[in-house]
Amino acid sequence: MARWPGATIVAMRAPFPVSSGSPDPARYRALVRPGGSRHVEIIDQRALPHRVVTTKIADADSAALAIRDMWVRGAPLIGAVGAYGLALALDRDPSDRALARAHAVLDGTRPTAVNLRWALDRVRRAVEGLPEGERADAAWREADAIAAEDVAINHAIGVHGLELLRDLARRKNAPVDIMTHCNAGALATCGWGTATAPVFLAHEAGIPVHVWVSETRPRLQGAHLTAWELAARGVPHTMFVDSACGILMRRGHVDLVLVGADRVAANGDVCNKIGTYDKALAAADNRVPFYAAVPSPTFDLTLASGDEIPIEMRDADEVLNVDGDDANASPVSVRVAPAGTRAVNYAFDVTPARLVAGLVTERGIAPATAAGIRAMFP
Amino acid sequence: MARWPGATIVAMRAPFPVSSGSPDPARYRALVRPGGSRHVEIIDQRALPHRVVTTKIADADSAALAIRDMWVRGAPLIGAVGAYGLALALDRDPSDRALARAHAVLDGTRPTAVNLRWALDRVRRAVEGLPEGERADAAWREADAIAAEDVAINHAIGVHGLELLRDLARRKNAPVDIMTHCNAGALATCGWGTATAPVFLAHEAGIPVHVWVSETRPRLQGAHLTAWELAARGVPHTMFVDSACGILMRRGHVDLVLVGADRVAANGDVCNKIGTYDKALAAADNRVPFYAAVPSPTFDLTLASGDEIPIEMRDADEVLNVDGDDANASPVSVRVAPAGTRAVNYAFDVTPARLVAGLVTERGIAPATAAGIRAMFP
Repeated sequence: MARWPGATIVAMRAPFPVSSGSPDPARYRALVRPGGSRHVEIIDQRALPHRVVTTKIADADSAALAIRDMWVRGAPLIGAVGAYGLALALDRDPSDRALARAHAVLDGTRPTAVNLRWALDRVRRAVEGLPEGERADAAWREADAIAAEDVAINHAIGVHGLELLRDLARRKNAPVDIMTHCNAGALATCGWGTATAPVFLAHEAGIPVHVWVSETRPRLQGAHLTAWELAARGVPHTMFVDSACGILMRRGHVDLVLVGADRVAANGDVCNKIGTYDKALAAADNRVPFYAAVPSPTFDLTLASGDEIPIEMRDADEVLNVDGDDANASPVSVRVAPAGTRAVNYAFDVTPARLVAGLVTERGIAPATAAGIRAMFP
Repeated sequence: MARWPGATIVAMRAPFPVSSGSPDPARYRALVRPGGSRHVEIIDQRALPHRVVTTKIADADSAALAIRDMWVRGAPLIGAVGAYGLALALDRDPSDRALARAHAVLDGTRPTAVNLRWALDRVRRAVEGLPEGERADAAWREADAIAAEDVAINHAIGVHGLELLRDLARRKNAPVDIMTHCNAGALATCGWGTATAPVFLAHEAGIPVHVWVSETRPRLQGAHLTAWELAARGVPHTMFVDSACGILMRRGHVDLVLVGADRVAANGDVCNKIGTYDKALAAADNRVPFYAAVPSPTFDLTLASGDEIPIEMRDADEVLNVDGDDANASPVSVRVAPAGTRAVNYAFDVTPARLVAGLVTERGIAPATAAGIRAMFP
């Protein structure tokens, strides 16, 4: 297991119990602040699904690295990790200059998800009027609040989304088939996940569900993360290659598509993991309702449409290689393309609002229109 | 031997001349019958792109194995290998019973592509009226004819498709951007490929082209095969993960989609590699013309629509694992999903004719309609 400055790799322990039993969000958490401590611990998601590795984050640069290199990912989670990163920076140096530097470093890690900027700005606002001696404590309190609110938001999204699943279950004498993409699960948040919260609540309520999990190339978050957390909670699921979404819908195997979001523009355009747009097109062509689960910090009402959202381009090596375990359960990266072949790696795409049946928020399900969003979040 | 990009030549020899120079289909061939011999040799495509391995096929069961386990693939190529498989069977035993058995075994290897059945039936028709002593020679002649016709068909498809590219080039002061999916290239045929033939002819004619190559999960024929053969011929190309087709089109980076086909119904519905339908949907949403290259043996006019085409389901392990080379250039298979996660593996999907701008055949470009196909092939 690799080490990096300021971080300790620890085995799975109390804050991350993986036990069978009730689908309690405390069963595993992508991010915890051990009671009263001045550090946080994360699951290093790069090692999943084959190993659970937790890592201590004890300074702002480590937080930035963990976000940039996707030890943590998911819009709500990187927001919270960013907030704690700012608190860690202020522990070391509460000056204006250190605050500005840490804000800039953390904000520069990933450009697409708006939650990161939102969380960083929120912590900055909470501390910038304070004397230097009070800043760090205030930052930790604000980061804690962001994380706690995320758990509550997840649950509220789950409650509203649950009604959609309950309706479908009433009309169907078989498990409700939900297609999701990437990981908008517990591992993408501080709690229940966004797109998965309705699924977990339905499963807990005894509503039979089955989840179609896209593998989500290039980084395979569906295979590595969503399949893992559904399995951990005993939710029936089946993986498919991304480009099988069309045939699954055409054959009537999908009742609803439910994905997460990294940024939603004022007109309801949804920016999410690469491949979301394709799934929305297949849903539209087969009259399958397509919903995005959107916590309010994911809205960016300063942008008129999704065309204005910056799309992160990541390294071509993520496309040219695939990571997993070999037959001896050792981590390995395989090269899939010939030497010299180039690749393009858009990390996200934008699904036009016209393809979106609704936005499942903590306040209810909003139409994916400017008026619908304004009415829900005046 | 550096002319084989990124590959180690394991068993390259005379039947597969690797010469620099014109993009002659003889530069590499997926299938050859060394002059006068009673066997054929194939490139074992499972080893590409990192190694070129050729294998001798000397009996019908080997031919069946090579088709079923995808040592060879691509509708036209498996048709030809099937035809030679029948000739090999008749060399050993020219009886009616042996003919029926070999036909059944070969026909059972892959259910979706219609070319296989077409080629087997053609060889059977050529021999069944003959005395047993004349059957094997007649079968070899018929198989040779099928292979030679495929090369000619490829070239004619190339000539007709070239006009599409030439038109686009006239209207654009930059390379024509063609998106393809899977491998409908030289490696899928006995010659130039179907979808790639227009590209190779354009490249040869000095028309600047650039090919967007989908990686094509689960078996990665785009990454493993199409990228490799484009590189071998010096055609500029860029790989993308399957689900990035939408954003590439939305951003205006694609002028035309050109794919192959495994079976085309009488109404113009196109059955092709899983993910083709998704690409057609993205093309339609972005007004990018979507064409399929269809040699006449790929039409199945006995089927009214694509709904009647049997879709092969392959082993879930192809989805749960990814094959490639590790950092030491050793072949390795990596497991991408958690233990216990199931997967579904549709090998093909059906693109409705309404999404298809035209079918590029050896006789010209037919509209994807019953009338259009009938007019081209009365």
